[in-house]
This record gives sequence, C-alpha cells and structure tokens, in this order.
Amino acid sequence: MRVLAKEMAEAARTRGGEEAEAAGWVHRIRDMGGIRFVLLRDRSGIVQLVLSEELGSAGKSAPALESVIAVRGIPALNEKAPGGVELRVSSLETLSAAAPDLPYQVNGDVSKTGLEAMLDHRTLSLRNPKIRAIFKVQSTIIDAFQAYLRSQDFTEIKTSKITGSGAEGGTNLFEVEYFDRRVYLAQSPQLYKQIMVAAGLERVFEVGPVYRAEKHDTPRHLNEYISMDLEMGFIESEAELIDLEKKLLAAIFEEVARRNSPELELWNASVPDPAAVLKAPVVTYEEALKIANAEAQGSRLFDINPEAERFLCDWARRDQGVDLVFVNRFPRRRRPFYTYPLAASSPEAGGAAALTMSFDCLFRGLEITSGGRRQHDYQALVESLPKFGLKAEDMAGYLAVFKYGCPPHGGFAIGCERLTQKILGLQNVKEASLFPRDRKRVEP
Amino acid sequence: MRVLAKEMAEAARTRGGEEAEAAGWVHRIRDMGGIRFVLLRDRSGIVQLVLSEELGSAGKSAPALESVIAVRGIPALNEKAPGGVELRVSSLETLSAAAPDLPYQVNGDVSKTGLEAMLDHRTLSLRNPKIRAIFKVQSTIIDAFQAYLRSQDFTEIKTSKITGSGAEGGTNLFEVEYFDRRVYLAQSPQLYKQIMVAAGLERVFEVGPVYRAEKHDTPRHLNEYISMDLEMGFIESEAELIDLEKKLLAAIFEEVARRNSPELELWNASVPDPAAVLKAPVVTYEEALKIANAEAQGSRLFDINPEAERFLCDWARRDQGVDLVFVNRFPRRRRPFYTYPLAASSPEAGGAAALTMSFDCLFRGLEITSGGRRQHDYQALVESLPKFGLKAEDMAGYLAVFKYGCPPHGGFAIGCERLTQKILGLQNVKEASLFPRDRKRVEP
Repeated sequence: MRVLAKEMAEAARTRGGEEAEAAGWVHRIRDMGGIRFVLLRDRSGIVQLVLSEELGSAGKSAPALESVIAVRGIPALNEKAPGGVELRVSSLETLSAAAPDLPYQVNGDVSKTGLEAMLDHRTLSLRNPKIRAIFKVQSTIIDAFQAYLRSQDFTEIKTSKITGSGAEGGTNLFEVEYFDRRVYLAQSPQLYKQIMVAAGLERVFEVGPVYRAEKHDTPRHLNEYISMDLEMGFIESEAELIDLEKKLLAAIFEEVARRNSPELELWNASVPDPAAVLKAPVVTYEEALKIANAEAQGSRLFDINPEAERFLCDWARRDQGVDLVFVNRFPRRRRPFYTYPLAASSPEAGGAAALTMSFDCLFRGLEITSGGRRQHDYQALVESLPKFGLKAEDMAGYLAVFKYGCPPHGGFAIGCERLTQKILGLQNVKEASLFPRDRKRVEP
Repeated sequence: MRVLAKEMAEAARTRGGEEAEAAGWVHRIRDMGGIRFVLLRDRSGIVQLVLSEELGSAGKSAPALESVIAVRGIPALNEKAPGGVELRVSSLETLSAAAPDLPYQVNGDVSKTGLEAMLDHRTLSLRNPKIRAIFKVQSTIIDAFQAYLRSQDFTEIKTSKITGSGAEGGTNLFEVEYFDRRVYLAQSPQLYKQIMVAAGLERVFEVGPVYRAEKHDTPRHLNEYISMDLEMGFIESEAELIDLEKKLLAAIFEEVARRNSPELELWNASVPDPAAVLKAPVVTYEEALKIANAEAQGSRLFDINPEAERFLCDWARRDQGVDLVFVNRFPRRRRPFYTYPLAASSPEAGGAAALTMSFDCLFRGLEITSGGRRQHDYQALVESLPKFGLKAEDMAGYLAVFKYGCPPHGGFAIGCERLTQKILGLQNVKEASLFPRDRKRVEP
C-alpha cells in the first residue's frame, strides 16, 4: 500500500516499524559521504529517503534527478528531516529513468527563473512545487466558484466556442476554417448565457475558455483565458450582482484559505478576510476618478485605466482596509451596447445622463470582473444599435432572444487567471495559465 | 419576496392567506368563459394562475404566450390544479411582452417536433420544459463527475484548446488563423493530461470542449463536444481504470437519480442501478466479437462497430442484467500509438501478440468511453512511432514529456453528450448539446 509524503509521519507513528511503500520523483539528492539522502516528491509533498548502505553507496549511481522511483522502507520520525520524518529505504525500483540533460532546474528557485525560460520548458517548470501550487489554488478557485453558485440554484452550462458571427462587433476575433466556411472563436459566452436565462434556467454559470485576438503583450493579457461566467434573471440593477460577487468571492477566498494553506505559504500569500470582502466599498465611476486623481496627486487620469485601477486599490486598502473595490455606473460610451442604461431621472443617476447599470471589480490593483445589468427590451436594443455603429440586420440572431419574452437580467465574469495571479502575487498573468497562449506561443 | 412554482403549495399551506409574488413565462392560457387560467413557468416548474375577473375578463387581452410577467396573489390549494395549488392573482405586471408571431411552439409535444425545427429555433426550443430538462440532467452529470474525482484526490485542470500541432497525426483538425500562423483546435486534452500527471499532480481531470473536423452526419457524432477527461499516474493496467470508471458512473447515476427525478420522469427514463454498474461485465475484444456475432446470429462482424456495440449491450442487459459493458485488450492496430502494449508473455494475453491495455465502455448500445494505460517509456514511444507512420521529429514536443521521468499512467474520457443522450433515451446526440455544431450549423 502506497503511503503519500504527507502521510509518512503518521505512518511512522502508527505502523510500529512496519515497512511502507512510497513512489514519486527524485527531487534532490544529497551525498553525505557514504549515506545518500534523496528528497522524493509526490502529489502530496516531499519526503526524505535515506538510502541504505548498499543502495546509497558511492559505487552505485543514484537515479538521475526527476526519475520516477518506487521504494520500500521503514518510516521513522527524525526531527532533523524535512517534515520530521524519513523513510529508511531497503529496496528501490526505477519506474522511469530521466535523461541526465535536464534543460530546466526543477528544484531551483522560481523567483530567479525568467518567465520565458519557465514557459519554454513548461513540461518541466510545472514540476516545480511552487509553480505546481499555482494550479492547486486555481483548481480550488474553480471548484468554489461552481459550488457557491450551485448552492444559489444556478445551473452549469457548456456552450459552443465556435460562433458564426462576432457578438460584439467582430473585432479581435480568431478565424476558424470550418468545413467550407469561416467562423470565429467566441470572445465570451455572453449571448449564450442570455439565451439560457431567457430559456428559463434563469440562473446559469459556465467556466470555459474565451478568445481575444488582441496583439498586445502585457502582464495582464492572454489570448486565451478561462472565464468564470454567470448570468441571472429577475434583477433590478447591478447592485444585486455586486452583492452576489461579494458573497461569491468571500466563498472562494474561504475555500482557498481552508484547502491551500501550504500553497499560500510557498508564495508567502494570503487571501483577503472574507468578512472584509462582504463590506468592500462600491464607488461610482465619477467618484472613482476623483479618488484615483487624489491618489495620483494630480488630475491626469481621465479614465479608469490600469494606472487608475492601482490607485483605487491603494485607496481601498489604506482607507477601507480591504483589497477589493467595486466601481459602478460607468458612462454609456465605455460599455458594450447591451448594457442597461440608468435613467437620468432616477435618484441613483443624480441627474446625470448616459450612465449605465454596470460595474467592474478591482482586486489588488487589477480589474478581475466586468459586468452589469443587460438591456432585455427588444425595441430598446434595436434602437440603441446605430449609436454603437451596429446594424439590426447583422444582429438578428442576438435580437431574436429578446423578441419573445426575456426577463430583466444581468451577469458578470471573473477572469480565472487574473484572480489566481492576484491571490498569489504573481508578476504576470501568464504564470497563472497552464499553457498560456500569446502572439508567439502555441506550444506545448 | 418571490415564491417559486415548486414552493407554491407549501406557501399555500403555511402563509395563511397572505399574498405571494411569482414571476416567469406565460406557458399556456386557458379561457374558461370569463375566468382565465394561465400556466406560469419559472426555473423550478409550472404553477397555475387564476386571473381575477378584472384582470382576466375577455375585454382585457392576456399577455401573449412566452411573455415574462410578475404577479401578486393569494396561493390556495386546489386539487384540480396542476401540482395541487393555484395563485389567485390580484395584480399583474408585464416585464417583457413577447411578439405574437412565435415561430416555434414552446408548450408543444417535443416528440412531434423534428430535430431540424428544434435546432433551427434553438433559443425557443430550449424553453420547452422537456428540452430544458436535458440540460438540468447534464449539469448534474458534470457536477457529479467533478465531485467524485475530487473526492479521490484528483486536481481539476484547464488546458489550451489551441495547439500548434495535431497530437494524433493531424487528420480531422480544424485550422485556426492565429496572428500570422496556422494552428489547430485540440482534438482532446490527451497530451496536456499526460504532462500534468508527469508534472506531479498525478491525478487530473478536465471538462471542456474538444473538436473533430469529421464530415459524417450521424446520430452519434458532433463536431464540437464536451469531453469529461481524466488521467492518473501509478497504475499497472487498464483494470484500475475500469474499476474507477465503474465507481465514477455509479456516483453519477446516483446523483442524477437523487437530484433529477422530475427530469427523468419527463423523459420516462431511469438510470442504471449503481450496485449493478459496479458489477458490469468486462470482456476482451476477442470475446466481445464472439458475443456480438452470436447475438447477430451470424459471423459478419469483424470489428466492434456501432452495430456490434448494440449487440453487446443487448447481451449485457439480457444476460448480466446491466446496461453497461466494458471491452478491453483491443488489438494494437485499433488504438492510438501511445496505447500501452500487453506483453504476449503475460498471463492476460494468453499468448496473443499485439494486444493493448485499452478499453471501451459501452452504455445502452453506444460507446461512451475510450481509454487505457499509456506508454510512458521514452524509448519505447520513439520506437513505436514508425509503425504508426509517425516521425519522432514531428512529435518532439510530445516526446519531451517522457524523457525526464514519467510514471506509469493511463486515463479515459467520457463523452458528456453521449452519456446524457443515453440516460434520457434521446434519438440524436445533438439533442444533448445546447448549441450543437455540425457541418452546416454554427448558429446561434
């Protein structure tokens, strides 16, 4: 029976000197004049092996780093060993010998490896415990997102990533040769989420890939990323969505804290206090610009750009004690055509025209969410199109959804890699993608 | 406070004549000479509204079918009403009026609608409760798949769907124009799953889209489908994978039975008994051919083709009392190059050469899974390539994974739409895809 690294101390305590099996990768070898110590890495952690004289003697070569081995031996407590336990090995089998010319140092210090080397040797860099930890955390994020929404009566959907037309005007789309025609990779499941709300599921979510054929290469962009999307019917304004996102993020942070403390420790990271998240400030676009300019000590910011996002998060952290801030009521010109307008006569608009029931969520200096209430009225949608340079004829498929009864609704999406990045404090969002795609990278 | 259709009877019992709110779609209208009955559909089910004399009088027109309305009224038990309850409405607001020219009858009998009409009017056909039920079941399938694997220490991964090269030889791939080069949509996450096992996660799963540019149009094929994939390290043969799939399917069937009895009832369907699933027969490819030919009352089947799959499932049902059968030890020529060979000298091979540690799972006449142990030995992989017409130079990215230590491993994938189809008894797998993609269909 195989014993995992994290279970070995317990086995030493309870098995009374009985032999145990372990298997994994040769992470590090230390030769201490005759005795050889091997750090064995498995999916649960790392355990120290002590090779018996025969197995460890200098005359016999140890398996190369990264080889996969299976061993038998007696687990014994030893406070000097990592994790306080070691396995005194009596037999060793090499399941897969690694070639000795490792082009990437798996057991090295990640902070000293450049991003390019890390991605060029992705099949090896993913073996590094600190890099692997990123994706253990990401797995929790996805699970917690799904579990919380299911608890709120949301239904999971899986929609097509191939679309005959671009939903938002046709720019930044990747073209696919689809039999004898050209189609596109979906930029978001926006239309499909709306169809499913209108189809009566009312509350839906999807975790899946989305595509942006944008040429910029920044630490915050990927050409393919995982969008954690949701949409819900029968809402009145973006306030209900912000409230939902606070609870959803609090649930995600709670789960990450509960399941991933070893991974957070490797990155010297922590999640925000869920109680503080529930009280995160919500400021209007107009207020946000004022705050950002006050932080910048000048009036040079005319939009909530990446610089303003950082200033706003600085303010939220210092002034409100939380790493999160919501910005709502964006001007109409800054949001997609389907965003629901805020009536100038409403008390929330304060007389301002051309505002919308929209919001962004900023976390540790980065926008991780964009969302809002959507226009559900067929006639209003048709009338708004020309203002955005769009034609009703080109949008017939989209418009049909609203022609036959669609409840007031809205939704948002959380960028999975961005959330992962900011929880762990990664420099570049590409580090939070298993196999990131950028202008030049499509392998492995 | 909104009361859902399924909660209305309880509200009638406990609210003591207090008013309740309801909201949803106008599913059906019955005019009974003065009184008007409206069936209101929401995400939970259907409830009968009784329109008060003023609201329901013939002089005032009712909202068109599929309009979204919000009502207030007093819930009252009435054993003649569907579900034993009705809401006696005092006020009605139309949230979204449907156009009167509905091109698809939402409240009609699905069994009388052709597949083409159902897909041509997908945004409306998905509103039909019986069609919507398919995707409630599918949501449970996905959740149960994920939950069971997490309970077995699997990590969820999300891998790229864009790949620089075709993993299995380059046929049947959709081409994508990716900036200034051509790439492909992934046929499966095969390579990525293997990388993540080798990277030390050991046990991984992914639920995501895969693409096959196959031209055939059959009731069992989709050009884009949801693959529920897993891969695990440190296995010895396909037997451990078959054992895992039995437990996994039993867990899925149990959850569908627990959560989706209304949906199963709509389709007059039931899931297999989980206890029987755990005892499903496993027959070798050779035995399977004999069984299929015996069922066919002739010797005309030379492969486990779709006809043979149906015969094998007939046999399993009649002879073994279960809707499931596993076929293992496929000949090498019938499996991909990375399949692990079964040594002719092993007791399992019985002297036969060129067999593999592979298997399929057949459910109710249809292959829903293909899987097996994979070749993890670098040298053996390199040597096997020429036999499959492949060149090591073209596969360098794939081979690198195995060069630096990879444990023995294997995995399988379950076609999500096929499993959904067979649980509910759908005629065509396209019915189990929200927005199916075939040669001519890329909208909506």
